[in-house]
Amino acid sequence: MATDDVHAKTAQGRTHRLALRVYYEDTDFSGRVYHASYLRFLERGRTEWLRERGFEQKEMAKGASIVFVVHRLTIDFLGPATMDDMLTIETRLATLGAASFDFSQVILRGEAKLAAALVSVVALKGSRPARLPPDLRSRLSHEGAAKPSSSG
Amino acid sequence: MATDDVHAKTAQGRTHRLALRVYYEDTDFSGRVYHASYLRFLERGRTEWLRERGFEQKEMAKGASIVFVVHRLTIDFLGPATMDDMLTIETRLATLGAASFDFSQVILRGEAKLAAALVSVVALKGSRPARLPPDLRSRLSHEGAAKPSSSG
Amino acid sequence: MATDDVHAKTAQGRTHRLALRVYYEDTDFSGRVYHASYLRFLERGRTEWLRERGFEQKEMAKGASIVFVVHRLTIDFLGPATMDDMLTIETRLATLGAASFDFSQVILRGEAKLAAALVSVVALKGSRPARLPPDLRSRLSHEGAAKPSSSG
Amino acid sequence: MATDDVHAKTAQGRTHRLALRVYYEDTDFSGRVYHASYLRFLERGRTEWLRERGFEQKEMAKGASIVFVVHRLTIDFLGPATMDDMLTIETRLATLGAASFDFSQVILRGEAKLAAALVSVVALKGSRPARLPPDLRSRLSHEGAAKPSSSG
Repeated sequence: MATDDVHAKTAQGRTHRLALRVYYEDTDFSGRVYHASYLRFLERGRTEWLRERGFEQKEMAKGASIVFVVHRLTIDFLGPATMDDMLTIETRLATLGAASFDFSQVILRGEAKLAAALVSVVALKGSRPARLPPDLRSRLSHEGAAKPSSSG
Repeated sequence: MATDDVHAKTAQGRTHRLALRVYYEDTDFSGRVYHASYLRFLERGRTEWLRERGFEQKEMAKGASIVFVVHRLTIDFLGPATMDDMLTIETRLATLGAASFDFSQVILRGEAKLAAALVSVVALKGSRPARLPPDLRSRLSHEGAAKPSSSG
Repeated sequence: MATDDVHAKTAQGRTHRLALRVYYEDTDFSGRVYHASYLRFLERGRTEWLRERGFEQKEMAKGASIVFVVHRLTIDFLGPATMDDMLTIETRLATLGAASFDFSQVILRGEAKLAAALVSVVALKGSRPARLPPDLRSRLSHEGAAKPSSSG
Repeated sequence: MATDDVHAKTAQGRTHRLALRVYYEDTDFSGRVYHASYLRFLERGRTEWLRERGFEQKEMAKGASIVFVVHRLTIDFLGPATMDDMLTIETRLATLGAASFDFSQVILRGEAKLAAALVSVVALKGSRPARLPPDLRSRLSHEGAAKPSSSG
């Protein structure tokens, strides 16, 4: 049952890749990229993942009054990034819920994995969780990501 | 005339002092504080200057629908701040207009002046300049800051 | 054995509290504090925890050539912080290793818990883990935090 | 003489254009881009201007031990940028000194000019101004930017 439920809402979307450059603003006096900067990079990846699917967050905030808020995040820092590095942010939908997404994200420099994260994002309307807009759900199911539970 | 006008709206308020600490987040790989971090420090100084006078920006945004927006800023960087430094942000009202403030601000470490800035801030309602709320103007005139033009 | 090992390096230090204010810089267009800003707040808490024990990170970087780097972080976002809020960052040493610390940290507004995090920090010399300086270990054992393994 | 001197060090380089996207991290609770974020955008523009000429700041810091530091900045904020906007950062060398650059920079959204800035950057070795590396000066003179004084 439990595993069925998991399977029911498990979805493995296409991996989205965003290239970005490390600038002064991202570094700290240790000479490395400041650890919280990685979260900014991951958020850029999720925003572009969503844009690739046809959705802009400013529009969703205005239209459906929905904002996406991170509610849980786990990140492992595996190696340092430094000034001038070109990084790749890989973003993949891990799980799709009624009002939430779980993302699996990786930060790479070339082949080297610098960070790996699991990020749970919830859709909010005001201060309450809100079902994802139908057109977004539909869009995600079109790529095989949103499988409705068939078990019953 | 011109100088009269200038005098009419010139005002020299009390100097507000805010102490703050430099953290990792404020530095960059050069080992110094990142230049844009000084602008964050200055903005904290202006926010506390306003709070000392009884006004909170979140409340003004909700109540009078007024937000304060920087529209011009000049800053001289005179010396480096580094990790763990204790800094003082001095904020003084230089000029009070109908819908705007000009601030003179200084960043110090002990006696050493690290930066000096002139910052013009305008009050906006939606996207248009808005007269400062009467209670704020009144509060500032009480400290001798808001001199109405006497020229006529 | 495993649990003995865990106990051997388990340590529960005093809770350190840092009060801080939310400024414009910390917020985003959703009206809330940007999620990565919480990591900046947590890092301020750890830096002040360390300073309270007599250690400054700039000095450690210069002297012992040791920098502290986050290598794992899990954070739950439990409620929104907003502009002008006064927050409290609670920092407590959870585990002390030979070259690492585990911290348990909480972000509060009054009694309301807005975030809870587990943060693993490793000491690095160049790019390799380094034993914590003896004076720091000694200082932490003085407050009962660094229990050497007695098991053998 | 004065004007000759000015001409001697006046140089108008090619305009470099950098496209960038506005993300959550750049905005604040007013719904606009936070004013200090514009300085981060401008710095990205200068870094890419330099990279286009064959120089990376991390390499210069390691090799010639030279870091570039902003020592004066004036910026006019002409209109708001918001979440999801695509911006263009235009960077042009205005003046080339022995140990410094002056840049003229503009931030655009489409045709709309959102900010205009003058930024003076000085090259430092340790804490003292340092002549620009010969290969960089030479590179800039090749594009007609570094005109030696002919006055005598």
